[in-house]
Amino acid sequence: MTPERLSEVNQPMTEKMIPDIVVGRLPLYLRSLRQMAAEGRQVTSSQELGERLGISAAQIRKDLSQFGEFGKQGTGYHIKFLEEKLQEILHVNRDWDIAIVGAGDIGSAVARYKGFSHQGFCVAMIFDNDPKKVGTEVGDFIVKDAANMVEEIRAAGIQVAMITVPASEAQGVANKLVEAGVRAILNYAPVNLSVPSGVRVQYIDPVIHLQRMTYYLE
Amino acid sequence: MTPERLSEVNQPMTEKMIPDIVVGRLPLYLRSLRQMAAEGRQVTSSQELGERLGISAAQIRKDLSQFGEFGKQGTGYHIKFLEEKLQEILHVNRDWDIAIVGAGDIGSAVARYKGFSHQGFCVAMIFDNDPKKVGTEVGDFIVKDAANMVEEIRAAGIQVAMITVPASEAQGVANKLVEAGVRAILNYAPVNLSVPSGVRVQYIDPVIHLQRMTYYLE
Repeated sequence: MTPERLSEVNQPMTEKMIPDIVVGRLPLYLRSLRQMAAEGRQVTSSQELGERLGISAAQIRKDLSQFGEFGKQGTGYHIKFLEEKLQEILHVNRDWDIAIVGAGDIGSAVARYKGFSHQGFCVAMIFDNDPKKVGTEVGDFIVKDAANMVEEIRAAGIQVAMITVPASEAQGVANKLVEAGVRAILNYAPVNLSVPSGVRVQYIDPVIHLQRMTYYLE
Repeated sequence: MTPERLSEVNQPMTEKMIPDIVVGRLPLYLRSLRQMAAEGRQVTSSQELGERLGISAAQIRKDLSQFGEFGKQGTGYHIKFLEEKLQEILHVNRDWDIAIVGAGDIGSAVARYKGFSHQGFCVAMIFDNDPKKVGTEVGDFIVKDAANMVEEIRAAGIQVAMITVPASEAQGVANKLVEAGVRAILNYAPVNLSVPSGVRVQYIDPVIHLQRMTYYLE
């Protein structure tokens, strides 16, 4: 269902009814607003946001209007206010602990990544099933034994996880994460995961992004 | 312009007219087909592809029909044939050399990543501007001095690059890549890049994907 249709039929605006494609653009708006705030800016417009993101100003206004009235005609958006509202909407006005499964190159890089702080996330633990890796240091963490993954994640109440294991092991890990109570999985393995409804999966696969661009190259 | 409109007005099917959102789904189809082929399968259907990907069968048929007739009513798609066709369409029936700029955790992990082979890509060189990193080994590569990036990339005729530097340096690197002749940039830095038309940018930012999921968590 498109945003246009939602407003045409004038249904009540509960969170459940916002199309995921719209939800997916909010983090981009939030990232641009943070960038502007870091530049010392206080006010912006849908035009400026649109130019930064390559999204039309009309689309941005339409997206935001589904969540409330955040700006005034002619005066634009107060950056700090809109930033806070988007954080609330996306539930990142708090920190979500993350469990990483897979302490290889990618998992270790993500565990050491400093970009999660103040964005709503905090890496809490990292697991591997390789006895040579278990007990070693990765950034600020000691790699835990994947054999205890379900119990440890459940005990910590962690709902967000990243899979950074080889493709052949990803589905097995996903099954365990679901068993442990995880409801949001960011999958770095280049394989589609099957999960029960109520569990979300997002994919990070550089090949997918690269192939989308080579289409346009000669 | 939506795919529906394209077929409604019955315009000639040149590559230029396919919406990028459709192009963006082709690598997902290709990945699933490869997976099926690896499982020893020979034939599939839009229904099965759709179930694996969480995309409707009708959408998949519509997407593919924009590029030609790849399957027959009732018999489905020959996996190997459709895989080859998609590789041709996406221009990954060849290998594209990639230059990586930034030999930190993420850049090093990507340089060592084995997932590019047989997918149309081959990491060719990695640069950094840190004298402590230049000349060191990362996987099969010796880190090159970023000061020579423009000349080396241009001399090698490389059109595809990845940016794995801190956010504050990403735009500067992008400018140099464009100067060097790069036309497709995969940006791992959490910042929007401004590039001339004719240059494509795709973004990999785990925060964006995570925030898209926490929207649905309580």
